[in-house]
Amino acid sequence: MLKTIKLSKKSKARLGELKTNHGKIQTPFFMPIATKAAVKNVSTDELEELGAEIILANTYHLYLQPGEKIIKAHGGLHNFLNWPKPILTDSGGYQVFSLSRIRKIKEEGVEFQSHLDGSKHLLSPEKSITIQQDLGVDIMMALDVCPPGEAEFEAVREACDITFEWAKKCKEQWLKGKNEQQLFGIIQGGIFKNLRDQSLEQIASLNFSGYAIGGLAVGEPREKMYEILEYITPKMPEDKPRYLMGLGRPEEIIFAVKQGIDMFDCVIPTREARHGRLYQFCTQDEKGAILLFDNFAYKTLAATNEKYKEDFSPINPDSKVKLLKNHSKAYLHHLFKTNEGLGLRLATLNNLEFYLELMRKIREGIENNKI
Amino acid sequence: MLKTIKLSKKSKARLGELKTNHGKIQTPFFMPIATKAAVKNVSTDELEELGAEIILANTYHLYLQPGEKIIKAHGGLHNFLNWPKPILTDSGGYQVFSLSRIRKIKEEGVEFQSHLDGSKHLLSPEKSITIQQDLGVDIMMALDVCPPGEAEFEAVREACDITFEWAKKCKEQWLKGKNEQQLFGIIQGGIFKNLRDQSLEQIASLNFSGYAIGGLAVGEPREKMYEILEYITPKMPEDKPRYLMGLGRPEEIIFAVKQGIDMFDCVIPTREARHGRLYQFCTQDEKGAILLFDNFAYKTLAATNEKYKEDFSPINPDSKVKLLKNHSKAYLHHLFKTNEGLGLRLATLNNLEFYLELMRKIREGIENNKI
Repeated sequence: MLKTIKLSKKSKARLGELKTNHGKIQTPFFMPIATKAAVKNVSTDELEELGAEIILANTYHLYLQPGEKIIKAHGGLHNFLNWPKPILTDSGGYQVFSLSRIRKIKEEGVEFQSHLDGSKHLLSPEKSITIQQDLGVDIMMALDVCPPGEAEFEAVREACDITFEWAKKCKEQWLKGKNEQQLFGIIQGGIFKNLRDQSLEQIASLNFSGYAIGGLAVGEPREKMYEILEYITPKMPEDKPRYLMGLGRPEEIIFAVKQGIDMFDCVIPTREARHGRLYQFCTQDEKGAILLFDNFAYKTLAATNEKYKEDFSPINPDSKVKLLKNHSKAYLHHLFKTNEGLGLRLATLNNLEFYLELMRKIREGIENNKI
Repeated sequence: MLKTIKLSKKSKARLGELKTNHGKIQTPFFMPIATKAAVKNVSTDELEELGAEIILANTYHLYLQPGEKIIKAHGGLHNFLNWPKPILTDSGGYQVFSLSRIRKIKEEGVEFQSHLDGSKHLLSPEKSITIQQDLGVDIMMALDVCPPGEAEFEAVREACDITFEWAKKCKEQWLKGKNEQQLFGIIQGGIFKNLRDQSLEQIASLNFSGYAIGGLAVGEPREKMYEILEYITPKMPEDKPRYLMGLGRPEEIIFAVKQGIDMFDCVIPTREARHGRLYQFCTQDEKGAILLFDNFAYKTLAATNEKYKEDFSPINPDSKVKLLKNHSKAYLHHLFKTNEGLGLRLATLNNLEFYLELMRKIREGIENNKI
């Protein structure tokens, strides 16, 4: 259940609180991604320092390596990676479809070959849940079928049907357990409004702890994504958290918040950091500035750009992170040019701080009806 | 000058204090290596937390990238990499001989091609000093010629002669400056005692701030190295710090300390960390234990070894570093197996803590005449 604290008077944005086994989280929030039980290049101490309240890990990866049984024996995923706050795991479905050689989608699940060693596996809805139960995470996701953004109506319709069948099985498997973990259902339907309606109705009928929109930001045009978000989000159950999977750029997050989305995850801050792209707030009139809301804007900068070679100003003078205040852009430039791992860490800290600060500004914006 | 605090009653080991522009350092000490102005995979904050008192950076690398003029404009190397404590730089000679395509050794210096872009450069003794002056380090090293461990007598003799000529020029260049930085001379001579004697006499005649033994641990057998160390170290000026360049394994450091060496640097802790090899203290009866002195022994462990897959014990339960106390060996194993950058950081922190703790134990050992 989502405890609604405040509805914006300016949009459908909402301020809320989500209770989990490892603490309450203010919504809307952003989840840094710890694909293989580590947020790339930063420590869990640093994540806490940044103010991260929840992270996301990948069932597919952890099932293959080190295996959920080892993590269970280790006392669960929180203990394994030494993170005392909430964790959400995806179902593993998305990675099966994007990383592995798929053998076959059947009613009982999806047969696939590991991208690591080619070994064969069956990921069934029941299996996905038991893995996530073994991991002991706070929020589990139901197994779904996520077609690519360019998929035709018929393929998306079929994906919705299987997603519904699997969702029922996930729920049944969940009911067999102690039910201490939350289970979220995923709405598919691609860019087709009637399929979105149908999928929402089907999934919502199963009464999950929360609902996610899947199958967006998977290659369709941004306008289409916005159209679907605007269409479907307000129809989702009001008393449950709404999670938009895999999104997105800061302006996309703002758009989604305005439609009533509460939860986000995205590889952008961590992945782009690895390529030396830094996100920073700036004034609206700065070159390359992208407006967010109220008087907030942001820009990105490429650490590898020659113009930073002699820029002795701090990476971010306003940062709460000592390393970002004390190291210069020239030094960061040098670290990227010389392939020093510390550069990846500094850029990742910068981008995660930006995304988490963005969410704080968003929550404040809802509070003050500025969003 | 070295302020001698205590001479061991058991060996030629000595406890001392070295004053620099950025603080005093207790000897014997170990310098973590920040080749390109960064100790690989750790931050300067972490180095301070570990108790590092001085680091070493490479003139060759910083001259080529980003260039000493940029670092000078940045306020010097301390400011560039945000490290308030002492820094020593090598002369660049060793890297010219090991990394670049050498064009020619001449009396005026060494012509070489950059390993990065093939550009041609002349590194002269004067140039090496002015670069190190621009970097603004606490301890500069004179440019020397370091022949490989298997070099014949005649080649080593020639190297000694050029090293002496260059040392004179380095000293002259140093005298032209403000002389605030210390300048150390380097003794060559390979495994030939008479050449070591000659080189020591030549270099010591120039009255440097300290003296280094170069040209050891460059491929010669360990017994030969020990023989030379035992032979030459006690003959070095007593009132000046003695620095053994590029060494070594813990037992080698102990051996050298017993001959009267005060300063060490080595890539072992950071480089081996990158391959998942961890240094840890252990009891003498443990499998694979190598005795150090008194009741101290150590062992190394390979994080990638399958046996750590389900070893849920801390990386180092006795560590002062939170990350090493709170993360398990199983997690470290997983990080290495999945190529997560955090694994490199944890292993590096572990090894640097080990080496710095080793030096603390050594200083305590001298204090108590146990070494």
